[in-house]
Amino acid sequence: MTDTPPDAPTAAILVIGNEILSGRTKDANLGWLAERLFALGIRVREARVVPDVKADVVAAVNALRTRWTYVFTTGGIGPTHDDITAECVAEAFSVPLEQNEEARRRLEAHYPPGQLNAARLRMANAPVGATLIDNPVSKAPGFRIGNVHVMAGVPSIMHAMFDGIAPTLVGGPPMHARTVRCLLPEGIIAEGLSAVQDRFPAVEIGSYPFYRNQSFGVSLVLRATDEPELEAATAAVADLVRGLGGDPVVETGQG
Amino acid sequence: MTDTPPDAPTAAILVIGNEILSGRTKDANLGWLAERLFALGIRVREARVVPDVKADVVAAVNALRTRWTYVFTTGGIGPTHDDITAECVAEAFSVPLEQNEEARRRLEAHYPPGQLNAARLRMANAPVGATLIDNPVSKAPGFRIGNVHVMAGVPSIMHAMFDGIAPTLVGGPPMHARTVRCLLPEGIIAEGLSAVQDRFPAVEIGSYPFYRNQSFGVSLVLRATDEPELEAATAAVADLVRGLGGDPVVETGQG
Repeated sequence: MTDTPPDAPTAAILVIGNEILSGRTKDANLGWLAERLFALGIRVREARVVPDVKADVVAAVNALRTRWTYVFTTGGIGPTHDDITAECVAEAFSVPLEQNEEARRRLEAHYPPGQLNAARLRMANAPVGATLIDNPVSKAPGFRIGNVHVMAGVPSIMHAMFDGIAPTLVGGPPMHARTVRCLLPEGIIAEGLSAVQDRFPAVEIGSYPFYRNQSFGVSLVLRATDEPELEAATAAVADLVRGLGGDPVVETGQG
Repeated sequence: MTDTPPDAPTAAILVIGNEILSGRTKDANLGWLAERLFALGIRVREARVVPDVKADVVAAVNALRTRWTYVFTTGGIGPTHDDITAECVAEAFSVPLEQNEEARRRLEAHYPPGQLNAARLRMANAPVGATLIDNPVSKAPGFRIGNVHVMAGVPSIMHAMFDGIAPTLVGGPPMHARTVRCLLPEGIIAEGLSAVQDRFPAVEIGSYPFYRNQSFGVSLVLRATDEPELEAATAAVADLVRGLGGDPVVETGQG
């Protein structure tokens, strides 16, 4: 994260749910959001997973919202007893939880008469001062309060919610990426790579080894907002690989 | 996490690496470790992802190791400049980083003469007082210091390292799980489910909706250490589903 300009927008992702921590559900929301935010020029600087425990959710929301530009939460906004995200976020902001009138109207319009029971009405609860996040899939909305965006945990619903709020987010200069892939082991490249990193402090260089077809190789990923600088650093890494007898393959993107 | 006995061992997982936060690499270590630890009777209570930034790694290690029984880290123990986990953990424990003699011997035995360069030798660094974690795949070891277990980020290597340390971990009473699956929407079940949860406070009940073949359904997952209590709660949930006109499918495990 060496290249993060001091004023670049940052983000944290907070995944809420016992099912992630018990291993039942393999979280895919973090990776999806990270990729989308990267493309928007917003740097994800931290992610946390917490259980459906009020004190833990409140503490995490407060730790993250005071440190980063944006916070995105997933999970815990359904109708059941273990869905406690709305009340936790209200408590984190020290505001009351209320039944949001617009959210209630949306649920009333969605459910057949008599089907909007007390449990489902809980999905209309939001902290005072929150604005709704549309849910085109199953109607029960998410909400935003301050810099915290509260979304569903079901991936398809979360994706639709994020697509709705993406245009409201202020991105920084977009991050560009190049990947130099080769079949040298990273231990051979490490010293030269460190020298390239020192020459290009505004480029973040990561080294990701892989093992494929009985061979060790490495993807050297360079990320920066300044494209000419990125190209120069990429050329230096490719030269390094060639100088060590490798055959570098350069690709646009994180590889 | 309502059922966690006060003395049950807990754990946190700390994933270290820019590549997870940029979306380049989709983390699978969290889910894998969560499942393994659950089976050992160790409750994962928190997970964090932090970038390759020293202050962030040190702060996360200290926040987690003081709160939970065990900490497991993945990532940042290779030979390149962005591999900073060992020095961060040393700093978190306020002990010097040293070249571990046994780790050096293992690397010397592994690499052909002349191949153990300065970068690779960095992989022998560990905090003073650490004990090594075997790496049967590529030799460069992880280490344990206090309650913190430092492992590789490459999944196949991490799995092998964890298999080696698993017998050294002290698990609590194993957590058992049952899943009641049905095609009712969770909003119909929520109120009755909350009443079952109140009747069985030692059973953790989670509600995980799904959308499949154009139908909404829900997996109701019950977890507890006390099997008779778990069976009673599972029967109550199945009865609830039947009473609402549903056709419950009961399975062992988290479904």
